Amino acid sequence: MKVSKFGGSSVANSEQIKKVLNIINSDDERKIVVVSAPGKRFKEDTKTTDLLIRLYDKVINKLDYAHKLQQIIERYEEIVHALEMDDKILDNLRNDILRLIDVYQNKPERLLDALKSCGEDFNAQIIAQYNTQLGYPTRYLSPKEAGILVTDEPGNAMILESSYEQIYKLRDYEETLIVPGFFGYSENDDIVTFPRGGSDITGAILARGIKASLYENFTDVSGIFRANPTVVSHPEVIPEVTYREMRELSYAGFGVFHDEALEPLYKDRIPVVIKNTNAPDDKGTFILSERDTSNLSHIISGVSCDKGFTTINIKKYLMNREVGFTRKVLSILEEENISIEHIPSGIDNLSIIIRSNQIEGKEKRVLNKIREQIKVDELTIEYDLAILMIVGEGMNKAIGTASGATSALSRNNINLNMINQGSSEISMMFGINEQYSDIAVQAIYNEYFAKETAQL
Amino acid sequence: MKVSKFGGSSVANSEQIKKVLNIINSDDERKIVVVSAPGKRFKEDTKTTDLLIRLYDKVINKLDYAHKLQQIIERYEEIVHALEMDDKILDNLRNDILRLIDVYQNKPERLLDALKSCGEDFNAQIIAQYNTQLGYPTRYLSPKEAGILVTDEPGNAMILESSYEQIYKLRDYEETLIVPGFFGYSENDDIVTFPRGGSDITGAILARGIKASLYENFTDVSGIFRANPTVVSHPEVIPEVTYREMRELSYAGFGVFHDEALEPLYKDRIPVVIKNTNAPDDKGTFILSERDTSNLSHIISGVSCDKGFTTINIKKYLMNREVGFTRKVLSILEEENISIEHIPSGIDNLSIIIRSNQIEGKEKRVLNKIREQIKVDELTIEYDLAILMIVGEGMNKAIGTASGATSALSRNNINLNMINQGSSEISMMFGINEQYSDIAVQAIYNEYFAKETAQL
Repeated sequence: MKVSKFGGSSVANSEQIKKVLNIINSDDERKIVVVSAPGKRFKEDTKTTDLLIRLYDKVINKLDYAHKLQQIIERYEEIVHALEMDDKILDNLRNDILRLIDVYQNKPERLLDALKSCGEDFNAQIIAQYNTQLGYPTRYLSPKEAGILVTDEPGNAMILESSYEQIYKLRDYEETLIVPGFFGYSENDDIVTFPRGGSDITGAILARGIKASLYENFTDVSGIFRANPTVVSHPEVIPEVTYREMRELSYAGFGVFHDEALEPLYKDRIPVVIKNTNAPDDKGTFILSERDTSNLSHIISGVSCDKGFTTINIKKYLMNREVGFTRKVLSILEEENISIEHIPSGIDNLSIIIRSNQIEGKEKRVLNKIREQIKVDELTIEYDLAILMIVGEGMNKAIGTASGATSALSRNNINLNMINQGSSEISMMFGINEQYSDIAVQAIYNEYFAKETAQL
Repeated sequence: MKVSKFGGSSVANSEQIKKVLNIINSDDERKIVVVSAPGKRFKEDTKTTDLLIRLYDKVINKLDYAHKLQQIIERYEEIVHALEMDDKILDNLRNDILRLIDVYQNKPERLLDALKSCGEDFNAQIIAQYNTQLGYPTRYLSPKEAGILVTDEPGNAMILESSYEQIYKLRDYEETLIVPGFFGYSENDDIVTFPRGGSDITGAILARGIKASLYENFTDVSGIFRANPTVVSHPEVIPEVTYREMRELSYAGFGVFHDEALEPLYKDRIPVVIKNTNAPDDKGTFILSERDTSNLSHIISGVSCDKGFTTINIKKYLMNREVGFTRKVLSILEEENISIEHIPSGIDNLSIIIRSNQIEGKEKRVLNKIREQIKVDELTIEYDLAILMIVGEGMNKAIGTASGATSALSRNNINLNMINQGSSEISMMFGINEQYSDIAVQAIYNEYFAKETAQL
């Protein structure tokens, strides 16, 4: 039994919904379907979720929200009419929204989560009803009916372990189930949404709960590219990656699939495939717990680069003779609730690499605290660091990966501020100046893929 | 005014002492001289300091120590006779040792420090008296008279800042001063020895105190080699290094000059030269605060490799989202009084590199504590790591150093367990398996020196 999740662009209009149902109805294993809210139909379009947030803003500011509500209804109206469905369902939607506004008008956080959830929820209802109309036994199931119980932190729900037993029972349904993504219910019966990538998380939770043979994640590209397609033209699609490769690529800016969504799948080693709703026969990218690395065509799986890192540099003579030195520095950052990324070090110096948004506005206080509490010789802060990540399960077997990568960067005159290769040996991380991000990704891609292809 | 320090082999016998005095008397700037205890005269010989430690063992175990005492006296007797000096001085030596044994027999730590100090102290007395005999106004000055006041931690003395004012007054002496290295006096008037490299420390303290124009460190080699001469045959001597280059080379096993000894010189930027007592006209190696890197003949200054590191590897999914994760791990090590060296990290893993002697016997307890106090996915420990260090002030200007180094290692089939390049940019550090230590040093030396030489 598979769990199939469809992203916003896959369910943005009637035409896309027909494609989705074709995919679902063509495979008996596809019994549990997670849908997003209608996404963009064209480049300048607004996602339904964003319309709902605008509605929330009006309500919360006591402004007239009739027009915003109407815009939302129209989004669904277009779908319902194009699918030649009964109009009645639209009244339900309108009434539901008005009811939520009424109930939660004095609880802004609750109202935001509740309104945001409507995008997925209505879409799931419409799609279930339409598929039934087509003659396929299909049932809409709210996250509550599906057993998705979550922690009560608005916008940042986490699944409660107890949910999984309940979810396993979904296997017993005869019908195809359509479940809205993005939210669950708290033990107090409140709607709570997941953090970003929310529908991916719902899909992963259901896949784990029903012990799916495969979690299919349908989107609008035919898998995960080896490099950002806005930086490298027509990059290859990766046929297979492991969870941990995916995680390391996501770390440095790979956007297709949120790595947090992998967490529920991790333990039970449930395979994932990223597929294209618009080209369902394309093989897509499989994300697996393990993969055979004995006969790899490529040493590395992909390359990514993320900007927006800040470095605190500390120099102190005989630093490493002082037990607890690094711990003291880290304690100061912890006091400020700053999570750190990496700590490359020399003999008498260490750098602390932090995502810039973590330390924004706290720089002065942090530097002052370090100066006051720890005797250091030099203390500086640097901005605009990018982290370039080269990832591949094959790297730990291949002597010379570091050499190939550093040569490629050197030929492109990219100075390496930092090199950090830890114990995992499935990645190499380079700190470079942000301005070199694109050139670096191109250089690495050309070194490992374009070149190899050219040799064939 | 220069401070000149002579190591154990430079003052091991009468012939060497004559060389030393030739050097001193040939330069009017050489007014303050620090001498070690007589070192080895031939490969199987025993250093005087080790004879003194054996004497201590006898005394402390209430055994007959007459023979051990006699061996020590004989060491000096040989020198005194060969220099045709008055025998009387030997009686003083004997009486001094007997007095120290009497005073400190119930204070083992004090006795050890007091006896160890005799090696340097007697040698200084003999050399001062002999030089006076030669007609050069020379005076033995005990560390107390020289103003070397230290903290009261036996075997691990640290200079008290207040000493420097006193030491500055040594400039006023007309005579050449001979000061024994290796120890100072506590405020309670006890003899306290410095940690290893002790005479180098005495020299550095005096150089700083008198604001010397140069600190000359005479030994039995003509400077610092670019690589360990037991690994690379006939390596080049480095003409100039900076303090920090020296520090990074020392870190990974460069033995000529103890980096701790540089600390007093660091602030006042006093230059050091490492010279050869047996070839005093050789230029030696200058250790400087800064050096001109605009026109370097070599990008790197040297390469070294030290064995005996242990790595603790931790894996934890989404580790970097958890504020304080690394701090918690480091706190456990701090509780066990383990100082750490480096913390290379990936996305979901981090390694902690520790000198093996720091964690010896504590491994189980440390691993158990980590397991109990921190939720980790995987925890392993690895031994037999060597750290290869490539050092050079020129590296931060030269794009491609990393590439050259990694290529050279790759061509020699050396797998890189760890790469750590921090903010200093004057070094690159590689973690490799101990078995590759020598091959790695040879590969790097050949890449950067042998090759360049061949091209000339």
